[in-house]
Amino acid sequence: MIEQDNPSGETAKISLDQIFELLQEQEYEQLRTLLEVIHPGQLADILEAMPPKKRMQLWMLVPESQEAETLSFLHDEVRNSLIITMKPDELVAAVEQMDANDLAYIFEEFPEHVRQSIEEKLPDEILERLETNLSFEEGTAGRLMSQDVITVRNDVTLEVVLRYLQLHEELPDYTDGLMVIDRAGFYQGKLLLNKVLTHNREILVKDVMEKQQAILATDDEHAVTLFFEQFHLVSAAVVDLNNRLIGRITMDDAMEILRAETDRTLLGRDGLDEEEDLFAPVISSTKRRTVWLGINLITAFLAAWVIGIYTDTLDKIVALAVLMPVVASMGGIAGSQTLTLTIRGLALDQITSGNRFWLARKEIFIGILNGLLWAVVIAVMAWLWFQNIGISMVIAAAIIINLVAAAASGIAIPLILQRMHIDPALSGAVILTTVTDVVGFMSFLGLATYFLL
Amino acid sequence: MIEQDNPSGETAKISLDQIFELLQEQEYEQLRTLLEVIHPGQLADILEAMPPKKRMQLWMLVPESQEAETLSFLHDEVRNSLIITMKPDELVAAVEQMDANDLAYIFEEFPEHVRQSIEEKLPDEILERLETNLSFEEGTAGRLMSQDVITVRNDVTLEVVLRYLQLHEELPDYTDGLMVIDRAGFYQGKLLLNKVLTHNREILVKDVMEKQQAILATDDEHAVTLFFEQFHLVSAAVVDLNNRLIGRITMDDAMEILRAETDRTLLGRDGLDEEEDLFAPVISSTKRRTVWLGINLITAFLAAWVIGIYTDTLDKIVALAVLMPVVASMGGIAGSQTLTLTIRGLALDQITSGNRFWLARKEIFIGILNGLLWAVVIAVMAWLWFQNIGISMVIAAAIIINLVAAAASGIAIPLILQRMHIDPALSGAVILTTVTDVVGFMSFLGLATYFLL
Repeated sequence: MIEQDNPSGETAKISLDQIFELLQEQEYEQLRTLLEVIHPGQLADILEAMPPKKRMQLWMLVPESQEAETLSFLHDEVRNSLIITMKPDELVAAVEQMDANDLAYIFEEFPEHVRQSIEEKLPDEILERLETNLSFEEGTAGRLMSQDVITVRNDVTLEVVLRYLQLHEELPDYTDGLMVIDRAGFYQGKLLLNKVLTHNREILVKDVMEKQQAILATDDEHAVTLFFEQFHLVSAAVVDLNNRLIGRITMDDAMEILRAETDRTLLGRDGLDEEEDLFAPVISSTKRRTVWLGINLITAFLAAWVIGIYTDTLDKIVALAVLMPVVASMGGIAGSQTLTLTIRGLALDQITSGNRFWLARKEIFIGILNGLLWAVVIAVMAWLWFQNIGISMVIAAAIIINLVAAAASGIAIPLILQRMHIDPALSGAVILTTVTDVVGFMSFLGLATYFLL
Repeated sequence: MIEQDNPSGETAKISLDQIFELLQEQEYEQLRTLLEVIHPGQLADILEAMPPKKRMQLWMLVPESQEAETLSFLHDEVRNSLIITMKPDELVAAVEQMDANDLAYIFEEFPEHVRQSIEEKLPDEILERLETNLSFEEGTAGRLMSQDVITVRNDVTLEVVLRYLQLHEELPDYTDGLMVIDRAGFYQGKLLLNKVLTHNREILVKDVMEKQQAILATDDEHAVTLFFEQFHLVSAAVVDLNNRLIGRITMDDAMEILRAETDRTLLGRDGLDEEEDLFAPVISSTKRRTVWLGINLITAFLAAWVIGIYTDTLDKIVALAVLMPVVASMGGIAGSQTLTLTIRGLALDQITSGNRFWLARKEIFIGILNGLLWAVVIAVMAWLWFQNIGISMVIAAAIIINLVAAAASGIAIPLILQRMHIDPALSGAVILTTVTDVVGFMSFLGLATYFLL
């Protein structure tokens, strides 16, 4: 990025290293000046990239005018760690400046007494908006929407619209268009600012507006993101079940949901939380990660138990102990590929009853082909190592069995989990590994017991 | 989403199942009508969610007016599978309607003769733009930018701006503001349409514009996405090294890059390509996945080789063969947690020299704590199973060693890979698993050999 000569522009860009340096050198005055002009979205990113002590130091320097917006950009865990350091009055002062939907987003995280004093001190109008947002469930469009919407009637001319706009000091962020309603308040479409500026001013709104679809307040966030992505929107209307306009969602919200969702998928696979603070204290991080290790330990002992069934066999042919991780690991890798593609397909709404079977058949075919190919390679390698044709035959068969089982589970597990309303991104991988370990050890050692003893 | 009564709205929403059904029932007329009004972004998603035969059937029904934009929304692999079915003339007709930057995005994928006939037939103006985009490297802002920008001078009044805008039929998509330049063409900032509409028309542009930062044409895509996310922008100017305005990037591009990046991280971990077609033919999918299985096989045999060193020990104490996967697997899980957090931190530019050591120390502490905790649990479980205090002691020690090694590698591997300019999201997990397998088997079997024989 180009650094502008004049750092007082609205979007001064400051690097993380600069901040670390200024903190190190105790240049607090200079820091304070920087923090006045930094974008709160960037400030939030910087705070999240700091170890706790430095984070506190920096937070103390953040001017009050920046606190509210910065808080709304932070992930839960970091935000909560900062909120507990704020006095109730300071917190109330900060949230008073927030939009109702940003406030709704974090309101339920506050301690009871803070919520009460916020409710007492908030102006009626904002309180009412807050309650509207809160009346919708978390994760729905209604909770997310801003009620700060400029509407125009469909039966007026652009000239009237222009005069109406001149009455405003400023339009809300991301106003690419005005929401159009009819006399009775029902949503009709969107009038792009574009059109207001380029069209003849005698034209009626309804003749130039877009018949853009609205989002239902009860739609879930995920549908909202896909809607924005597919239609490449900057803003979209939110309506109630009667098609009455009640709010608006903007593209930056959609982008945040997308980021949160992909974080959840990415981190959930390792039992991590997308709200996880990279710089959380050791104890709280250990606690959370340990749960996941515990779950994994159960599956590891399940695999060990399967091996335990065949100790006699292992006792007689020690080469089996050497080779058995190969069978389990190949199954784990192949299954993981299918699982990841299926989870992504589900997340993008690409898998339906119309293509599920096609996909399952395809993956199982791939499993068979890859199974045959690697069975030969591994059998040859095993023969070179142990010069025992029986072991080679057995490992080849086990590889084919495990790769087909892996493909079938990679498709079936996420579909079943989704039907049970469990996020496959969170537990799919553990279940899959359990299957591929158990099938891998059991087929390899079982076949060896049957044929080689 | 609410289905509008009038399906001729610009953004008719059609479900995948509807399309499958209409194809099944051969309702081609109805399909063609739907395809006329569907948003090309959604059409691309639908095409990607179809098995090859149905995809072809549907593509044949897509009206020519939709072809160009739809192609630009598709992932490489699906797009190429459709392009090869198009006659050169048809293809040229389609790309003539594309924006230069969309065309630049796919141009290099075309066969040589198609590129030539495109270059011959394109109007000079578009060809020139195409060449400008292509003159910047893939993955840079310059390649991505649109040259379709409305600029105004900083020394005119809003009245002049308004009159100027009236001359346009329409403004480019995502025009939330006009780019402001000075007399010499140097970028000055952005004039929000907002302001044009709400401010007094006598005011000069320079007194009401935002001093928004510009993106350098040579900046990479990743920096562009973070810039849009942090500053919550709809559009941003692109300038050359002399700060001369040459183009504009919009939020939908940033969102697409974000989606592609997270896809790459998510899929890359399993050796999959983010351009992978979920419905690609079995053979081509098998080929790609098989490479990854081959790489994994090498690491699996490396682990097997480590086990092979200790066959004498395993021969004497078969319980070790039963328990050894537990040690490797716990290390793999713990390491994977650290690795994933580190990769995400790197992707968000949150890890710098200022916090790297803090983070490494923290992760190793977590490794020690979790190691101690699970060492005790596993030692007890092993004792209950085999009633051998020696085995319990050895597995406890091996767990601690492996969990600390896992934490250290989880931090070190991605940092080293990044320094070597290798994407840690792609190969980090394989390397990590190799380390935790080798360290796990070696410490467990090695300690057993030393103490128990």
